[in-house]
Amino acid sequence: MAVRQAPLYVGAMPTNTQVRLVSRPTGFPDASNFEIVRDAPLPEVKDGEVLVRNQFLSLDPYMRGRMNEGRSYAPPVALGDVMVGGTAGEVVLSKTPAFAVGDKVVGALGWQEYGVANGGALTKVDGGLPLSVYLGVVGMPGVTAYIGLYDIGEPKEGETVVVSAAAGAVGSVVGQLAKIRGCRAVGIAGGRDKCDYVVRELGFDACIDHRSPDFTSELRAATRDGVDVSFENVGGPVMDAVLAQLNPFARVPLCGLVSQYNATEPYALKNVAALLWKRVKLQGFIVSDRMDRWPRALADLAKWVAEGKIRYRETVAHGLTNAPEAFFGMLRGANLGKQIVKLV
Amino acid sequence: MAVRQAPLYVGAMPTNTQVRLVSRPTGFPDASNFEIVRDAPLPEVKDGEVLVRNQFLSLDPYMRGRMNEGRSYAPPVALGDVMVGGTAGEVVLSKTPAFAVGDKVVGALGWQEYGVANGGALTKVDGGLPLSVYLGVVGMPGVTAYIGLYDIGEPKEGETVVVSAAAGAVGSVVGQLAKIRGCRAVGIAGGRDKCDYVVRELGFDACIDHRSPDFTSELRAATRDGVDVSFENVGGPVMDAVLAQLNPFARVPLCGLVSQYNATEPYALKNVAALLWKRVKLQGFIVSDRMDRWPRALADLAKWVAEGKIRYRETVAHGLTNAPEAFFGMLRGANLGKQIVKLV
Repeated sequence: MAVRQAPLYVGAMPTNTQVRLVSRPTGFPDASNFEIVRDAPLPEVKDGEVLVRNQFLSLDPYMRGRMNEGRSYAPPVALGDVMVGGTAGEVVLSKTPAFAVGDKVVGALGWQEYGVANGGALTKVDGGLPLSVYLGVVGMPGVTAYIGLYDIGEPKEGETVVVSAAAGAVGSVVGQLAKIRGCRAVGIAGGRDKCDYVVRELGFDACIDHRSPDFTSELRAATRDGVDVSFENVGGPVMDAVLAQLNPFARVPLCGLVSQYNATEPYALKNVAALLWKRVKLQGFIVSDRMDRWPRALADLAKWVAEGKIRYRETVAHGLTNAPEAFFGMLRGANLGKQIVKLV
Repeated sequence: MAVRQAPLYVGAMPTNTQVRLVSRPTGFPDASNFEIVRDAPLPEVKDGEVLVRNQFLSLDPYMRGRMNEGRSYAPPVALGDVMVGGTAGEVVLSKTPAFAVGDKVVGALGWQEYGVANGGALTKVDGGLPLSVYLGVVGMPGVTAYIGLYDIGEPKEGETVVVSAAAGAVGSVVGQLAKIRGCRAVGIAGGRDKCDYVVRELGFDACIDHRSPDFTSELRAATRDGVDVSFENVGGPVMDAVLAQLNPFARVPLCGLVSQYNATEPYALKNVAALLWKRVKLQGFIVSDRMDRWPRALADLAKWVAEGKIRYRETVAHGLTNAPEAFFGMLRGANLGKQIVKLV
């Protein structure tokens, strides 16, 4: 058994900083829902396990759902538990031959400085890309875009793909994947700056500001040939507006409803009849249901990032104690590209 | 060229009774939207065409959509034109060798006593079943049930299938097809009598009256293991109630929204988030998009009807002039099973 000791243990035993969920929000969450614990003991590392010092924490919209009680696609975070989340970091202690101290790994160790996982729950990353990229464009959000667009959306060359939250971690990849497939890519984002970024830097054909008073007519003008794939991240009135533009046999990969996650009354969808008349396929999906597709998706994404065919940006918060504020900002759409927290 | 003369032409030239659309309804249609014309001339029959005396006219919910102006999956009926509709009748004059006088044929000749069609648009029926059946369980509604349930719903043995408008032409077949596949079949219908028919005569496992004050709790009780396939014919609050019961990876063949066809304000759907959390596939479809599946579907349906595995009833109106009233009744759900009009 390869047990290797990290420098960490040479001096004083470090403690673990954690962000725990302590109450469930009604509507928009706030700081009182979280407790920051600075002196938690380091977890014990059993045979087969690995201790990781997290360098980056991913913040993602799905986390809002985990704060709720009740049914969702995954159990809620229990009160008192560390918030769940994707992480990238460095192995500091290994009790499995599969990992050595110093290895860079991606996992789901949550909102904390140190985490322990079975070796099988960690992925070693050694591509030439910056570590944080494996939480974004070459990680869960990138694979979400890939599977949702290519497997559910099935876009064909020359078709029009619309994606909401187009400046976000998933949406920004969706539009670029659409361009790689030879489609017209139209983004929807909140604000002029995001739209400029989406068109000028990411190469979308158009991007519509959903805050514009002329949103509906601008969307119509940008999708004169109708919409063949609507990659839905947002829900609400923006979703209704896009449904009105769908072509017959359009596909709607339903990836998120971020406009609804903090709503106490859900937005009720008006254009249901369009799904019938236009014979639309609308399909909810979660990237973790399709693990068989990850290797191919990650390989393609890494290649396209390396070739410059997919560009990305990150919005970086510094220090774990700032994670709650950064999370609230992401839920409000304050981020451009992937929202991460840099821990060290 | 086989030209055969029907007895019809021996005496006085008959005239054609027709029901024409003369105005477009706002909300629920009424008699003023139709004009009954009793003395229209018989249409000319060109080479390759066939003159048919219609014996049965099919009345179907989709016809309400054709009365509207504007976009749908098919162009509207023009004002002044004969209403569209499926028909079954007898060839009285043929200018194609493919049909002989006396042949029983199914086509889409509309709300009129006589119609002309190219031979390619007619299907000769010579099974041992009553002619009207080819407008119902072994016709378009039956194939709709077959394709929607089997191809889009993809039910597996032991799963639970829910179907709304369960006593109607399509719904009654859906539940019986579910039973043939080894599923639990739960119907939703309007009124105690319809529910009794669905359970006792058609063999569904349960049927819930959507007019019951306890509808939601009764639906929950009848679907304790959740719902794997929801065959949607109705829309509105009934659809929302079923969405709340869906299991992960459920399928929703979206066949109709009959509760909405006369609505001036569409019902807005609340449980959209369930489609995401539960990774549901919801797919609108129209039976005419999948003509390749008709031969197999019709063969199976005819066999199962002959074997008594699929039972059916018809609600029959007598005389073409009563077609509008029968149509309004069908839109209100007054029919049990297939609504037809017997013309002669």
